[in-house]
Amino acid sequence: MKKKALVLSPESRLKEVCSDKCRTLLNEHFDVSWNETGKDYTKEELAEMVSDAEVIITSWGSPSLSEEALEKAVKLHSIGHAAGTVKNLVPKQIFSRGVRVFSAAPRIALSVGEYCLAALLASLRHLPTLDASLRAGQWRELGLKGRELTGSTIGIISASSTARAFIKLLAPFQVNVLVYDPYLSEEAAAALNVTRASLEEVMSCPIISVHAPKLPATERMLTRELLALIPNGAVFINSSRGPVVDEQAFMDELNSGRFFAALDVFEKEPLVADSPIRSLPNVLITPHVAGASVQGHLSLMEEVVKDIIRGLNEEKTTYEVSERMWEVMA
Amino acid sequence: MKKKALVLSPESRLKEVCSDKCRTLLNEHFDVSWNETGKDYTKEELAEMVSDAEVIITSWGSPSLSEEALEKAVKLHSIGHAAGTVKNLVPKQIFSRGVRVFSAAPRIALSVGEYCLAALLASLRHLPTLDASLRAGQWRELGLKGRELTGSTIGIISASSTARAFIKLLAPFQVNVLVYDPYLSEEAAAALNVTRASLEEVMSCPIISVHAPKLPATERMLTRELLALIPNGAVFINSSRGPVVDEQAFMDELNSGRFFAALDVFEKEPLVADSPIRSLPNVLITPHVAGASVQGHLSLMEEVVKDIIRGLNEEKTTYEVSERMWEVMA
Repeated sequence: MKKKALVLSPESRLKEVCSDKCRTLLNEHFDVSWNETGKDYTKEELAEMVSDAEVIITSWGSPSLSEEALEKAVKLHSIGHAAGTVKNLVPKQIFSRGVRVFSAAPRIALSVGEYCLAALLASLRHLPTLDASLRAGQWRELGLKGRELTGSTIGIISASSTARAFIKLLAPFQVNVLVYDPYLSEEAAAALNVTRASLEEVMSCPIISVHAPKLPATERMLTRELLALIPNGAVFINSSRGPVVDEQAFMDELNSGRFFAALDVFEKEPLVADSPIRSLPNVLITPHVAGASVQGHLSLMEEVVKDIIRGLNEEKTTYEVSERMWEVMA
Repeated sequence: MKKKALVLSPESRLKEVCSDKCRTLLNEHFDVSWNETGKDYTKEELAEMVSDAEVIITSWGSPSLSEEALEKAVKLHSIGHAAGTVKNLVPKQIFSRGVRVFSAAPRIALSVGEYCLAALLASLRHLPTLDASLRAGQWRELGLKGRELTGSTIGIISASSTARAFIKLLAPFQVNVLVYDPYLSEEAAAALNVTRASLEEVMSCPIISVHAPKLPATERMLTRELLALIPNGAVFINSSRGPVVDEQAFMDELNSGRFFAALDVFEKEPLVADSPIRSLPNVLITPHVAGASVQGHLSLMEEVVKDIIRGLNEEKTTYEVSERMWEVMA
């Protein structure tokens, strides 16, 4: 008999994260209860529905799977989150109940990695600036000459899944990658083909990419003193979270015009309408979309469903979140 | 005794293409005559100076090394061009005189390859459009979702050195690369890990990159009929030469808004001030700078000098241009 699976996302949200292949896969392997209400379930509706669910599939907008909501979910085996972090979705206690938790966050990391390379190369070659100057009727009046990435040194803050996705894409560029991450072992660094470094060393690189998760320990970890280390002419990329950076100190540095920044995240989002960041010439700014892509989103549910099936078959899983991982997650 | 080398570029141009390392290398290996006139030599000055030159080093702006100019260059062994194509620099007859010709064009190809990946990723992720929308006070109002490169199919027109540099950078993206090039053998395609395809197949890919040299045979090779094959939603990149494309037909296609183009080259350059291309929403435009980068330019002379030394030592050369290559060059 097929196991019972409860898919929490209504159709409107499902179509973004669940491919046709994923629908087929779910129906083949599970007795699926699809959300046909046209809206997200409330906490109360959810509490009523979980009693026979063996697998629960969630995505953005799904109600929190609190202890209370899952009180009657006595048959629950696996929770798969077709989105990013599960930190706010499942409580830590779920692990002690033996429920296995899966998150598609590493799949999102690929989109972030591609964004980082896109933003880095576009910044090195002044693409947005040149495009704007041509639209303004110019040709080469700015006298800008781009820079190559090949052979550069890149400083990475935190060896997170997004950093790892980015590092993989750097392979053909023969770059020298320095990583600051207190949890990265010498062996893991060697396997990634990177060198462990201090935060000061990383912040002194000509290219810097921030991948630190938002945690109490990382809040404003990039202090005024550290931001002052960014070399003139550097490219600084933040695709993680705004509050990791002391934004006022960062604005003071940016105002000098001495380096370029590609910023996808900000202290306050949406970025306030009159933010001075919006008019700086030395930034490339995007609305927190580094992790968002058509293909990436459409793969999310399929990836976690496949992994849950692997888990049920007692095969090696890829997207499973352990209690230890949950603790250091953003 | 050191061989006599004649460096044609004046200091003002030399500093862009000749690194300190290259100056040292030249002085170590040759008895160098540097151009201290502050300007390019005229044809007449050159004709007077070549009689004892065994090596001539040129770059942008150097006078053409015509048969006439080289009449007295009886000791000439090698010509090294620290720039792109040597087609307009040396006449075909030079080869029958046994002079070896070197061009740094393949070094420029790396900058072009990086530009292509930069333009492609920036286009897929709508970076210039999003940056402009944030500067206009918006956040996510455009509702644009980017696309990933990983797993895509890419059509390449001409397996030139710039195409090969681009293809190398695509390695981590697990893409499927189709190449149209009448000179590309099955074996060479396999070595590049690409598939040979017809021009029609390549023009039907969701990502298309043009690398064809400007030759009589390639003029307007991308006809109205071929341009009509570009799929909706595609990204089309031209980093080779404007005249390869039927620009009026291309404008008609672009005006439909049905695909996006990253254009570094145009039929007429500089792009005319009132060109309608300048105001299209679905293009990323740059002023013919794909091959221009600080590091790339500063490596040019060093690369050809090193290769000339290899040639003199009867070692394998990298940048040497054969008579056969000269014929199919742009």
